[in-house]
Amino acid sequence: MPIVRVEMFEGRDRETKQKLVKSLTAEMARVTGCSEASVHVVITDVSKEDWGIGGELAATKFPD
Amino acid sequence: MPIVRVEMFEGRDRETKQKLVKSLTAEMARVTGCSEASVHVVITDVSKEDWGIGGELAATKFPD
Amino acid sequence: MPIVRVEMFEGRDRETKQKLVKSLTAEMARVTGCSEASVHVVITDVSKEDWGIGGELAATKFPD
Amino acid sequence: MPIVRVEMFEGRDRETKQKLVKSLTAEMARVTGCSEASVHVVITDVSKEDWGIGGELAATKFPD
Amino acid sequence: MPIVRVEMFEGRDRETKQKLVKSLTAEMARVTGCSEASVHVVITDVSKEDWGIGGELAATKFPD
Amino acid sequence: MPIVRVEMFEGRDRETKQKLVKSLTAEMARVTGCSEASVHVVITDVSKEDWGIGGELAATKFPD
Repeated sequence: MPIVRVEMFEGRDRETKQKLVKSLTAEMARVTGCSEASVHVVITDVSKEDWGIGGELAATKFPD
Repeated sequence: MPIVRVEMFEGRDRETKQKLVKSLTAEMARVTGCSEASVHVVITDVSKEDWGIGGELAATKFPD
Repeated sequence: MPIVRVEMFEGRDRETKQKLVKSLTAEMARVTGCSEASVHVVITDVSKEDWGIGGELAATKFPD
Repeated sequence: MPIVRVEMFEGRDRETKQKLVKSLTAEMARVTGCSEASVHVVITDVSKEDWGIGGELAATKFPD
Repeated sequence: MPIVRVEMFEGRDRETKQKLVKSLTAEMARVTGCSEASVHVVITDVSKEDWGIGGELAATKFPD
Repeated sequence: MPIVRVEMFEGRDRETKQKLVKSLTAEMARVTGCSEASVHVVITDVSKEDWGIGGELAATKFPD
């Protein structure tokens, strides 16, 4: 039943997200002993214009 | 003052969201005794490419 | 697969939470057409010392 | 290390978000004593069609 | 209607939280133009045993 | 800069949480290419009395 949420900069493609979901799910099951079937992973893409670090937008701090 | 968040697959139209907001708000008030006016409901549409269940993307597991 | 989160003031007992889970789940299924079995509801009790409204702690604004 | 999340109606431009990130970060550091460099701020723009208040969508209650 | 969430290490007292709520609310209103009355701030205290940074628990990395 | 949140039933000890943080951080870095140092993991222990699945509390459905 665990729920894992990932917030990261937008731009990863579907294949990377599939790998991430697979890998985080496997680790959750391995470390906590839950079943893989019970794990939910929800990914949120965040624009660099919506993420501030140290008071500055990531869009400014880490331009693409 | 309760805040209710709903994460669900994207694709519901405005009318359905209006019904959902009305109904969840009414139930919150009925069961907990808070006022309807104080209830916030925030809906997040999640793409099936951003939701993993059992290690697999919902986009693969439940194609439209 | 929907996930519903509820943040509310702490203090509701288990019976009320059970009613809330039952009722929000039923409404999710009725309005969106998902199965009841797929609905997760996660409740977070929030202390009035951790909730600010209009710049003031709820602990001050709404003392028990 | 604090993480601040802001959910607000969509429509603010990048300059406003930059000001918000700067100001919330400064206040976090001033009040809690953490370093500004350690503060993350994540902004989520919410459509008025996804926000219910008192059982009604903000899109209806507060049309633009 | 904005909702601000703060996750930070546990240990701040009520007075500090009151200052934080007051100050974040004032800045939200000043920068975005919303009313102070409409701002919610929800604080979550996180134990250093529940926060990992760079793969290590904060409890180990930043012992009290 | 990614932030990973884990909600799971309460009861895991510090050693398990340390392993979980280490492992999820490593996978985030491996799959997305971010640095391990930039990954935050925040764990939330949820009581079985606060988690509903299919309309029933986990406390009832999965008693300890």
